Amino acid sequence: MDGSFPLPIFGGETPLYDQLYRHIAGAIQSGALPTGARLPSKRRLCALAGVSMSTVEAAYSLLAAEGYVLAKPRSGYVCAHLLPAGPGLSGPAPAPAPGPPPEPPRWACDCSTSAVDTSVFPFSSWARITKEAVYENPGLLQRGHPQGDQPLRAALAQLLAQYRGVRCAPEQVVVGAGADHLLSLLLQLLPEHRAVALEDPGYPAAYAAAALHGREAVPIPVDGEGMDPDALAASEAGLAYVTPSHQFPLGVTMPAGRRSRLLHWAASAPGRLLIEDDYDSEFRWSSRPIPAMQGLDRAGRVVYMGTFSRSIAPAIRAAYMILPPALLERYRSTFSHGACAVSRFEQESLRRFIAQGLYGRHLRRAGNLYRRKCAQFTQALSAIPGASISGAEAGLHFLLTLPRLTEGELVERAAARSVRVHPLSRYCHAAPPRPSTVVLGFAGLSEEELAQAAELLKEAWG
Amino acid sequence: MDGSFPLPIFGGETPLYDQLYRHIAGAIQSGALPTGARLPSKRRLCALAGVSMSTVEAAYSLLAAEGYVLAKPRSGYVCAHLLPAGPGLSGPAPAPAPGPPPEPPRWACDCSTSAVDTSVFPFSSWARITKEAVYENPGLLQRGHPQGDQPLRAALAQLLAQYRGVRCAPEQVVVGAGADHLLSLLLQLLPEHRAVALEDPGYPAAYAAAALHGREAVPIPVDGEGMDPDALAASEAGLAYVTPSHQFPLGVTMPAGRRSRLLHWAASAPGRLLIEDDYDSEFRWSSRPIPAMQGLDRAGRVVYMGTFSRSIAPAIRAAYMILPPALLERYRSTFSHGACAVSRFEQESLRRFIAQGLYGRHLRRAGNLYRRKCAQFTQALSAIPGASISGAEAGLHFLLTLPRLTEGELVERAAARSVRVHPLSRYCHAAPPRPSTVVLGFAGLSEEELAQAAELLKEAWG
Repeated sequence: MDGSFPLPIFGGETPLYDQLYRHIAGAIQSGALPTGARLPSKRRLCALAGVSMSTVEAAYSLLAAEGYVLAKPRSGYVCAHLLPAGPGLSGPAPAPAPGPPPEPPRWACDCSTSAVDTSVFPFSSWARITKEAVYENPGLLQRGHPQGDQPLRAALAQLLAQYRGVRCAPEQVVVGAGADHLLSLLLQLLPEHRAVALEDPGYPAAYAAAALHGREAVPIPVDGEGMDPDALAASEAGLAYVTPSHQFPLGVTMPAGRRSRLLHWAASAPGRLLIEDDYDSEFRWSSRPIPAMQGLDRAGRVVYMGTFSRSIAPAIRAAYMILPPALLERYRSTFSHGACAVSRFEQESLRRFIAQGLYGRHLRRAGNLYRRKCAQFTQALSAIPGASISGAEAGLHFLLTLPRLTEGELVERAAARSVRVHPLSRYCHAAPPRPSTVVLGFAGLSEEELAQAAELLKEAWG
Repeated sequence: MDGSFPLPIFGGETPLYDQLYRHIAGAIQSGALPTGARLPSKRRLCALAGVSMSTVEAAYSLLAAEGYVLAKPRSGYVCAHLLPAGPGLSGPAPAPAPGPPPEPPRWACDCSTSAVDTSVFPFSSWARITKEAVYENPGLLQRGHPQGDQPLRAALAQLLAQYRGVRCAPEQVVVGAGADHLLSLLLQLLPEHRAVALEDPGYPAAYAAAALHGREAVPIPVDGEGMDPDALAASEAGLAYVTPSHQFPLGVTMPAGRRSRLLHWAASAPGRLLIEDDYDSEFRWSSRPIPAMQGLDRAGRVVYMGTFSRSIAPAIRAAYMILPPALLERYRSTFSHGACAVSRFEQESLRRFIAQGLYGRHLRRAGNLYRRKCAQFTQALSAIPGASISGAEAGLHFLLTLPRLTEGELVERAAARSVRVHPLSRYCHAAPPRPSTVVLGFAGLSEEELAQAAELLKEAWG
């Protein structure tokens, strides 16, 4: 069959063996070289194609390795049997992927609740620390502890005891790639909880996590003290997710009495658990940060969660949770095969950032800046006739209510002036607890931008 | 009640307001200060406790913020009602967390399949790159694209086209924190697939992922060409996870005919999907790396996955998957709220590592080293009478079969000489396809350690 053997026209920069290999593989796939057909001997192909023996050998060994041809003793290479192309297999290449989703509109001022101010980020310290973390720790290249490396867990346990009144041993700490990731691990760990009680209004990602893990999301109303314990007790859920320090999005701080009632609920039936998401507790304006509910828990029924996404920056994909002792053993047997999802270099950078006192200093600087911004923005907006502000005692967002306008009017009039604000109903499952209310984040806007935003909103709503 | 008001004995380094606050909160919690009891006026407490007005104000505002006391007009502060401690709430603090799990035995040689050789890691380049990535990209502090940043996705698409024959647009790439994390996202994305076909023997983490997401793991036998397509077709699964380049753990490379049959299976019913895990395809000793199955897929039925855990190091928690166009839109609507789990600084470091040609250079250096190690170790072990080696054409592990001994004897005799080898049955769900067989990883051991391991194993099994 030498005469009819399909030979490539060599050209371009691809190595010759590769061109030869592709050409023959293509001929076998298309059926031009049928099953059982003998390929020319290597020596013969060298002559036919005008290439070196090493080129032919490389192409043939690749064809054999991929199963296009079979090496038969004394017969050389014969074409293997390939299944004829099935439905779709012979069609054109898959359609080009849909393009990126449409660009979000560009806002003059985006009052997002998840942005932070990067002007206080200590770039040079962080750059130095990340470099040192790589240089000084070659051992970090290997697989680390599935819960995160011990030195970082010890630093976190100490930090949380000092700043948040959390009581735990480093063994109870689990490091993960963001709060959503930890919530996902937690739901995987707790398959017996088919229903999850969530704050209403509440954090959309918690609702999404429940849905993604096939759990029933049970919205529980939030009043002026946080999640309603009677509604919780009346529900079938045995697992409840709460944000006691600064309820998202209402901004309510849960008082001690309500905390006791929730702890009481958790302790009064086997297997009940509270997830305490302390997502922006580092920032509190009216008093020093309020200790976490976890520190009051004597029954081991609180899983505490926190993140560096707001206290440092969203780019730092590291969060942590503190498991009660009873869950810890289950965690270890369930996830023993896994690796911690955070790069060990980044873990070591965070540990150094904390240990060298840079994290504390950053929190003070960022806290001062955010306190100033919060005061500036709320003060400017208070000048709008009829406007009232709530939830501004802590955190990086607050609510504004203006009964003269509907929620939709508030959002649309702001948008018409290129200011993005979120309607409270976006976070609600039953009726919003407060009509005519929007959620305003301020951390991501500079002081100049906040002044501009306030002016635009006064025009829009004045 | 001034005379009976409980006053702290100040001391230590804690701020006075904090000592005062903790003392009063404790008295309210214990009932020493009952519900409704009035606290002394601020001025009175200054005198009683001998502290400044600002100390008292700080303590009272904290007690009020936490809900321990209520500010009543004209009455000053009164103690709030706290629910009596519930079951467990009054008990002792939770038991100290169980200590760290028992230290694994220390092996003279651990033939782990997941370790890598860190001696070729370009520490100084990586340290420089990470530092530059931080310094030169302040914008990276904010939230990035949920699929990973576009420049890294573009670099990956190009890299995979060049090295692996993968055909995709950057829009199809999803970056995640390790292959296990991506597998978890994928299962969340595909709730309709209640059963997942997995290779038997196969990757334990894939079985674990199926269980954690409440799916039925359907073991499909692996023969000398990979997953058995007849057994797959006979199963009820519509989603199959395969490792065509270097089957884990058998080391089989799936020939083209078998690939066609699997693609045919996937294309011949709506909704069927193949997950191609290309976990260590960068390293191939007998020919150049074999192109990925994804590149042959014309029906859009392959999700391709790869990782840097083996090609760079387990510490780098970055992996990627390529979604077929039809899944991409579903991915976007399902995970639109989430952030990419990999630090944006690390994403930028990886992009630079690839773009500056350092990744390609690293792969060549590491590949040469591993090729040498593989040859050295297999050659030394071949000297054991009766031993046969398979699956050593690629990747960082191979199988050794020695019919004279049982699998248990192989593992125990090696352990008695402090060499850790894994029994093949560890990865099996039905009967192991080959008795008397162990799995040997070599990448994590130095050439000296491999020589030592080979000597010890010759003694153990000779």
